Amino acid sequence: MKKIICIPDSFKGTMSSSQVCDIMESTIHKHLPNCEVIKIPVADGGEGSVDAFLAAMEGIKIITTVNNPYFEPMESFYAILEGNVAVIEMAAVAGLPLVSDRLNPELTTTYGVGELILHSARSGCKKIIVGLGGSSTNDGGCGAAAAVGVHFLNDSGTRFIPTGKTLIDIKRIDLSNIDPILSDVEIITMCDIDNPMFGEKGAAFIFSPQKGADSSMVVRLDEGLRHLSNKISETCNIDVSTVAGAGAAGAMGAGMIAFFKSPLKMGIETILDIVEFDQLINNTDMIFTGEGRIDEQSLNGKVPIGVARRAKLANIPVIAIVGSIGSGYEEAYNQGITAIFSINPEPVDFSIAKSRSKENLALTMDNVMRAFLAINQS
Amino acid sequence: MKKIICIPDSFKGTMSSSQVCDIMESTIHKHLPNCEVIKIPVADGGEGSVDAFLAAMEGIKIITTVNNPYFEPMESFYAILEGNVAVIEMAAVAGLPLVSDRLNPELTTTYGVGELILHSARSGCKKIIVGLGGSSTNDGGCGAAAAVGVHFLNDSGTRFIPTGKTLIDIKRIDLSNIDPILSDVEIITMCDIDNPMFGEKGAAFIFSPQKGADSSMVVRLDEGLRHLSNKISETCNIDVSTVAGAGAAGAMGAGMIAFFKSPLKMGIETILDIVEFDQLINNTDMIFTGEGRIDEQSLNGKVPIGVARRAKLANIPVIAIVGSIGSGYEEAYNQGITAIFSINPEPVDFSIAKSRSKENLALTMDNVMRAFLAINQS
Repeated sequence: MKKIICIPDSFKGTMSSSQVCDIMESTIHKHLPNCEVIKIPVADGGEGSVDAFLAAMEGIKIITTVNNPYFEPMESFYAILEGNVAVIEMAAVAGLPLVSDRLNPELTTTYGVGELILHSARSGCKKIIVGLGGSSTNDGGCGAAAAVGVHFLNDSGTRFIPTGKTLIDIKRIDLSNIDPILSDVEIITMCDIDNPMFGEKGAAFIFSPQKGADSSMVVRLDEGLRHLSNKISETCNIDVSTVAGAGAAGAMGAGMIAFFKSPLKMGIETILDIVEFDQLINNTDMIFTGEGRIDEQSLNGKVPIGVARRAKLANIPVIAIVGSIGSGYEEAYNQGITAIFSINPEPVDFSIAKSRSKENLALTMDNVMRAFLAINQS
Repeated sequence: MKKIICIPDSFKGTMSSSQVCDIMESTIHKHLPNCEVIKIPVADGGEGSVDAFLAAMEGIKIITTVNNPYFEPMESFYAILEGNVAVIEMAAVAGLPLVSDRLNPELTTTYGVGELILHSARSGCKKIIVGLGGSSTNDGGCGAAAAVGVHFLNDSGTRFIPTGKTLIDIKRIDLSNIDPILSDVEIITMCDIDNPMFGEKGAAFIFSPQKGADSSMVVRLDEGLRHLSNKISETCNIDVSTVAGAGAAGAMGAGMIAFFKSPLKMGIETILDIVEFDQLINNTDMIFTGEGRIDEQSLNGKVPIGVARRAKLANIPVIAIVGSIGSGYEEAYNQGITAIFSINPEPVDFSIAKSRSKENLALTMDNVMRAFLAINQS
């Protein structure tokens, strides 16, 4: 075996995708010191996504001062990858940890995300990836839109920057002043959840409580988003009310679609495209992927299946290493997964197993490699 | 892959070795319908050993009436395998379940074991395997010896058949009347434990309580065995007091050595010899073995290691499928184990996992086969 790709998701709650990659790589090199190992830690758009991209590809980290969720200046960052592709994670400027004890999704803004988008475009990026997730906001992306020149006007015709509380005040939206630099920039939004914009499965009801909303605030936020949806419909002639994922990150998903003409894309698909996976797998002997749990939900575009679907076309074996194998996993084989190995050396509860996940992963990888090398030689 | 051997131990408490073999075979045939699969369920000498041998080799089961642990007639059995090799399990005639609520290791006898040995010799067997384990007795094998013609004499020169209680009464042992048919029969004793005949790790202290001995009986039984050891030393010029395994099955191990000139042999080694493993593995592509738990104790002659040591000489990959991987397992690789896979798809406690062991084994075997076939083809 001369070339192996490691492209795992994180094992939620125990290991980041970068950690999984490193353990996989070191085990492979223990047995095959000269094997080329390509590590692609998969990000879901949330916190850590920029670093994950930088671990998988050549690129630089750009530091710049923009507005935090409370319109205060802060130092934030994004990445410019080879090929002038920018990667922005909204968590880096509108993230929940940034507000610490000032949790209030009626007041927080995604304004800084728009500033990062503009900064990267002005730096020459023609493709910008915006990762959703981990936000402190519920502004439907209006802050980010305002930062790039979208005008929001109230009943009296005054411009303002809507936040969760003031979405309801939007009378009219004017797209005519969007910075022209964005006109030939492709923006792709990474989004791994499929919640709608509003309603009982929407952004406010599902996610705003963890951002600090009490039950009456949840209802007000939901009404605001419903109002925004109508205004988007009037202005942009787009119905975001039925789009899966529009509710992601305080309905930032809806804003990305409406104001940035950005499609929502699963994290894994975004990454596979950016790393040019279909070319990368040429001459690859094996692909290792993995996630915390593989089950029927995994079929819904999660990492191992996304990887397997493409590898299958090239007839490359895909081994999934997972924390647990749950019901419905069998369909994974049809999608291109060659085999699945779980990392549990002993029948012990997760409360015990989780502290040993790194050594368990290494042990399992080690045995898989031992077996493969013996079979390959025999 | 054209020829695969499955030679697992039982998974203690969850699956017999025959069940493990069957699951392994059906999974292999699911992927390779035309692959030759040789199943060798490994017995340890205890209950089920005769059936395990009959599952692995051609042979017939012989039914005959002999004496049970209380000198009462009962229908028992043994096997005659191809090559006129007899397999006797002492549990079939002196086993603990046979006494039901009459647990009393001062009174029970191994007389029936001697009768089965004689019966098989008279049927033309030149090699007899006697499996120890699961006994209700503590007679040091004196009952079995008496059945083949060993005379035990008390102070007044009267012949008697010693049991646990009357070992202490042995004044003299006379070997001159042993049935001559045994003189050119090779008897091998299968014994997987290494307890000494007497003392704090001996047969009485360790095993007689579960056979019904209270603490004062334990002491008396231990004294009886110590006395027998001395008498064996006087008569046979053999010191059984220091032999590992002499304490097996109520010190039947000692009696087999002294009265039947039989070496004690690990179950796996006995089976590997009987099935002519070294020849059997010719043209074998892969060997699957397994056990409930692989750890540093496994290195002590247990099934996977016994298999691996021989397979290593022939350079055949040995995959161990186990219920759990414990500390010290790494040495297994040096002994010839290619790789170890545990059968736990999820991190759940053994109390939950044990009820799913069969499906978990099948799932693991299935994935190992899927991976191997993909590697083999790529």
